[in-house]
Amino acid sequence: MSAPLTVVIFGATGDLTFRKLVPALFNLARRGRLPEHAKIVCTARSPHTDESFLEKIAPKVKEIMVAAKEKWDDAEWTAFAKRVKYVAADGTQAGGLAPLSAWFEANEGPDGGQRVYYLSISPEYYPPVVKALGEAGFQKEKGGFKRLVVEKPFGKNLESGKKLNECLHEHFQENQIYRIDHYLGKETVQNILIFRFANTLFEPLWNYQYIDHVQITVAEQVTVKDRLDYYNKSGVLRDMFQNHLLQVMALVAMEGPNKFSADQLRNEKMKVLDSIRIPEPDEIANHVAVGQYAGYLDELDKATGSRASRTPTFAALKLYVDNSRWKNVPFFVRSGKGLKARYSEVMIQFRCPSHLMFPLPKDEVLQCNRMTLVLQPNEAIHLNFQTKVPDVDGVRLKPRDLKFNYREAYDTHALPEAYERLLLDAIQGEASLFIRSDEIERAWAIMDPIIAATQEHPDLVPETYPIGSQGPASAERLLADNGKTWQPIQ
Amino acid sequence: MSAPLTVVIFGATGDLTFRKLVPALFNLARRGRLPEHAKIVCTARSPHTDESFLEKIAPKVKEIMVAAKEKWDDAEWTAFAKRVKYVAADGTQAGGLAPLSAWFEANEGPDGGQRVYYLSISPEYYPPVVKALGEAGFQKEKGGFKRLVVEKPFGKNLESGKKLNECLHEHFQENQIYRIDHYLGKETVQNILIFRFANTLFEPLWNYQYIDHVQITVAEQVTVKDRLDYYNKSGVLRDMFQNHLLQVMALVAMEGPNKFSADQLRNEKMKVLDSIRIPEPDEIANHVAVGQYAGYLDELDKATGSRASRTPTFAALKLYVDNSRWKNVPFFVRSGKGLKARYSEVMIQFRCPSHLMFPLPKDEVLQCNRMTLVLQPNEAIHLNFQTKVPDVDGVRLKPRDLKFNYREAYDTHALPEAYERLLLDAIQGEASLFIRSDEIERAWAIMDPIIAATQEHPDLVPETYPIGSQGPASAERLLADNGKTWQPIQ
Repeated sequence: MSAPLTVVIFGATGDLTFRKLVPALFNLARRGRLPEHAKIVCTARSPHTDESFLEKIAPKVKEIMVAAKEKWDDAEWTAFAKRVKYVAADGTQAGGLAPLSAWFEANEGPDGGQRVYYLSISPEYYPPVVKALGEAGFQKEKGGFKRLVVEKPFGKNLESGKKLNECLHEHFQENQIYRIDHYLGKETVQNILIFRFANTLFEPLWNYQYIDHVQITVAEQVTVKDRLDYYNKSGVLRDMFQNHLLQVMALVAMEGPNKFSADQLRNEKMKVLDSIRIPEPDEIANHVAVGQYAGYLDELDKATGSRASRTPTFAALKLYVDNSRWKNVPFFVRSGKGLKARYSEVMIQFRCPSHLMFPLPKDEVLQCNRMTLVLQPNEAIHLNFQTKVPDVDGVRLKPRDLKFNYREAYDTHALPEAYERLLLDAIQGEASLFIRSDEIERAWAIMDPIIAATQEHPDLVPETYPIGSQGPASAERLLADNGKTWQPIQ
Repeated sequence: MSAPLTVVIFGATGDLTFRKLVPALFNLARRGRLPEHAKIVCTARSPHTDESFLEKIAPKVKEIMVAAKEKWDDAEWTAFAKRVKYVAADGTQAGGLAPLSAWFEANEGPDGGQRVYYLSISPEYYPPVVKALGEAGFQKEKGGFKRLVVEKPFGKNLESGKKLNECLHEHFQENQIYRIDHYLGKETVQNILIFRFANTLFEPLWNYQYIDHVQITVAEQVTVKDRLDYYNKSGVLRDMFQNHLLQVMALVAMEGPNKFSADQLRNEKMKVLDSIRIPEPDEIANHVAVGQYAGYLDELDKATGSRASRTPTFAALKLYVDNSRWKNVPFFVRSGKGLKARYSEVMIQFRCPSHLMFPLPKDEVLQCNRMTLVLQPNEAIHLNFQTKVPDVDGVRLKPRDLKFNYREAYDTHALPEAYERLLLDAIQGEASLFIRSDEIERAWAIMDPIIAATQEHPDLVPETYPIGSQGPASAERLLADNGKTWQPIQ
């Protein structure tokens, strides 16, 4: 029999526990993917018994799952809940993890066990808690693996990112650290790799010879709401670009690894990040557009008593990858809050055919091929191509779509939550979809000068955009300079 | 005002008139595509007045159009019918076209007019009728163009094909001759060119580096029925391959013309036909499979009193195009009667990715990319590609389709009939979709040795296949030798 397995959630009284982690573990358990002997230990400072903790979270978990149209079965929950324990502990105090040590001793037996530590705590507590884990010897792999799952933010700039990595490395080996970016857990994001590398059709076209430019959009409809104080220190560039957007861009741009293994995959992503050109100070304003949704400063004023903020709630970047595959192909990358819809996509705009044998009517411009990978919410692939308009005089062309809809094709009402996949991967030691320390640092190195410019550059004062819009006009101008337009957020 | 225009249908009492030609002309007229002054003169040997001829065909035209779910409007028909005239004439007799000459003189006026002669007559009458047209001076373009539309068969072998061309050329210029292959009038067949040459995406992959093989299928569900005597002299190779299948193959394989013009297009098709390798006698049995549907010989016996026939009702060929684009790429081309369904498609089987980074489960073989252009009946394009199976442990691949459905995309219940397009093209002098004399002769040069082998080669005795099946097993073996399989007729 293999060693006992424990998933330990630090900061278990926070929202993430009932919103994502427990639903994901519950789903894994009832589908038989979680090892039968696995236990879930929830820990936080508040005093709770197993029962009182479960009473607190059960209705919330149920509400979340029912709202997401996931099956709810009381008997299944009861069976699962038996495996959920609560241990009060405070990793920020000297010796504060003693109750946890005691629990492990009592429950794992003398040979120790396998553990996944999930840090679902406020980032300022990362250093003390990681230190406490180290001092308690929780990183020692005697008796089974010990893995540490860390949530973003991974610092707020290159300096603090490095410091966080140093702190983590002081107590854990890099291969014990699972930095989670839930975007990588999305089926559609993983499918970028399958789409590119398990098909003959697309990879030969996937380069500067055939691709005119790439658009990556991660649009949110929600506004900041009650997280204003935190958000205003972060902004969209730290919150979305440093992690999700650069990661998606790396998957779109990277060379094919020889094997689908964590190191090879991350090596290839790292090569892309390394090749992303950091805009020079004198040209940065032509590579960046920023905005704040209307009312952001009023909300900030109400929350903090100050309206002084250049923090962008929207940004669009023009990035280049300086390698032989992507010579002069701009990657237009945008994200923001308060936009028209919650919508994420990768759009590949192919070049036009070098010569068109068919006569076009005057004033008609050929819409050249576009491939859209819709990451959410209606996961799909659209390949926009020219067709012959039937039943008209002569040859007339109109673009239409070759379509693939993920849920239709797999006859499912929903694709699984990213957390389910990522938790299982962490338990199984599959690190491919987690971010390595060098990626974190390089991503900050790219973002730092851009973030600095949005604070200081006279041409980068954020432009107000209406809530529910496509973002600020400056984002359109970023493309228009190149004669291109954004694919609408819809 | 432009010269009067007359469409003259020779053999107007035959089925094609009410089945295809009059419905097509009626549709063109009511959509305003037929010039307002255009008249339709129907001619045959039987005596008829305009009225008695119209009374004879009107109910049949209506029946055909209603069955095809085309709009029927009595008032529209009445308006159209005024333009339909009947002239009894016999082109097989000396001076037999005098009544037509008289009609033209009376109706075109002294300056003459534009005429399209449509030969809807039995092929043995082509020579005498063409001769009669020439002797009556009907080919002279004084006063307007004179065009001759000729239906297949264009001979029954190279010798007779050449002879027919000589006969046509004796009286008409090649640019006056419109040899009709209704397959080229299908929207989906024309769309092959748009698909290939108005898109950036496919042409770079359209060669031996990326394509493993091509399948072209034109399957008929019907059996021969009442045309047995004729059919048994022809067989599927003359009836379908020499024209439709080689034409579709030429469109799939050809280089892009610089302009969409009749001559450039036909030059490029001709280059393909010229490059099709004619199998050597000692290898021909490995390149051909033939069959007869069960009961064919019984039907033949009943109709002709003889069961002695090796005429194939099904054939499958393995053809190669000896040029730099198609080096060693087999084109598997099949057609037959009495098959599972009426179904035509072009299927492009792409090669597999040169290296697969994802581990495949043991015994699992990757289904490499396939692109299917469904020509009829459910006009569509399916691009079969690998996707990530959602919600399973690890990375699992499954093929799914990117889909385009022609009628859905253009929100129409039916694509227009090929004859509508081709008649309009002939009237407008657009010859791109008609077949040139050199194509006819080269197509016979390819087919003749194959047809001869099916009559003589001991290994090419036609194999009986059940009605409603996929054809004979020998067709499967033709591909199996290469480790491939036919895409099912469905």
